Amino acid sequence: MSHSTDISIGLLLFPALTQLDLTGPYEVFTRAPDTKVHLIWKNLDLVVSDRGMAIQPTTTFNACPALDVICVPGGPGQINLMEDEEVLSFIRAQSKQAKLITSVCTGALVLGAAGLLDGYKATTHWASLGQLELLGAEPVNERVVRDRNRITGAGVTSGIDFALNVVSEIFGSDIAQNIQLHMEYDPAPPFNCGSPRSASEEQLKKAQQQVAPFIEKRLQATLKAAAKLHK
Amino acid sequence: MSHSTDISIGLLLFPALTQLDLTGPYEVFTRAPDTKVHLIWKNLDLVVSDRGMAIQPTTTFNACPALDVICVPGGPGQINLMEDEEVLSFIRAQSKQAKLITSVCTGALVLGAAGLLDGYKATTHWASLGQLELLGAEPVNERVVRDRNRITGAGVTSGIDFALNVVSEIFGSDIAQNIQLHMEYDPAPPFNCGSPRSASEEQLKKAQQQVAPFIEKRLQATLKAAAKLHK
Repeated sequence: MSHSTDISIGLLLFPALTQLDLTGPYEVFTRAPDTKVHLIWKNLDLVVSDRGMAIQPTTTFNACPALDVICVPGGPGQINLMEDEEVLSFIRAQSKQAKLITSVCTGALVLGAAGLLDGYKATTHWASLGQLELLGAEPVNERVVRDRNRITGAGVTSGIDFALNVVSEIFGSDIAQNIQLHMEYDPAPPFNCGSPRSASEEQLKKAQQQVAPFIEKRLQATLKAAAKLHK
Repeated sequence: MSHSTDISIGLLLFPALTQLDLTGPYEVFTRAPDTKVHLIWKNLDLVVSDRGMAIQPTTTFNACPALDVICVPGGPGQINLMEDEEVLSFIRAQSKQAKLITSVCTGALVLGAAGLLDGYKATTHWASLGQLELLGAEPVNERVVRDRNRITGAGVTSGIDFALNVVSEIFGSDIAQNIQLHMEYDPAPPFNCGSPRSASEEQLKKAQQQVAPFIEKRLQATLKAAAKLHK
């Protein structure tokens, strides 16, 4: 049992996730005072990311305590989560008492499939933004979007900005600033091309072509999830 | 054996590392074409980060192939590496043929203890910058520092900027920009306080006080390593 004053934050750790969607926020959250961060999956077996990093869950759906913050990261494996009733039920059940229901990257589409973004403003990875609407959300092209108790982050690296915002919300800006300084988060990207707004037309077209097969496959999953929600 | 055209990049994965020092660059490097990324430790047992994340190494010192890029991340566990001859010998041996010898955060002090920064400009986490000099390096207060084939990154989150620079160096800016766009690396820190230059005096003093015991303990390790180098 966690101490009654502790904040408990749970990150879903699922096969073929994009590990930085999770490890960025994890680094921020674990630096917050009196905070227990859980890495949650169906069992405690090692989970392998989309690019091969094996990370161990710290708790399971059954053993996980009531969370104050639930966070769903993204990555190609999120497609499977969108039709996995065990996963969706877990998220829905935790969301009943969680203070904040959150996601990073394409994790937003899992929240959407669980029916948790219906009527909410939200964001996700730029290449997936359009599909949020099919799940009842209002897509907002920003890095971190808050609507009532939903906080969603854009693609991959946005998880760091997202998590600092969450910590600021829960613990105040002094603590968030302290963490930002310890993490030396004073970014200096080598190029100005990290979003469709700033990338060259050529770069954007190339990246869109590269993700097109995945986006098309995920459209089917999104349509299926949407049909279930509206039944 | 890796294919002869493959680039092989090795990241040291050691107990009590700061996982984001490694997971940031890992996310960038694994998106580079024809690249094999190794997570290297003494054995294949799970390695636990300073804040409790358990990650599995993919290879060992003995089994690791010749690396094109060797990268040492930081975190409190790096103190132990500075006097671990097995670790220092591995790094020195790999450095003989590696094209790039690199570090993120306080990993620079491990490179320094291996004698690999003597006469080189380098950077590290802001709170540790002063100690680089004791190991013969010339500290430079920048986010990513290159001197000949040494590339060092500043604290924690700088690993993303660092890795994009490394990819740009090896594969060209087109590939690096493609990765930056896929990772939606268009940072929007909630505060302007991520470096000693930008943080308030109060925030800086508080953070300095928090790390002081570690910095003092590490000074002893640095002095010991320096004495060994000059023997």
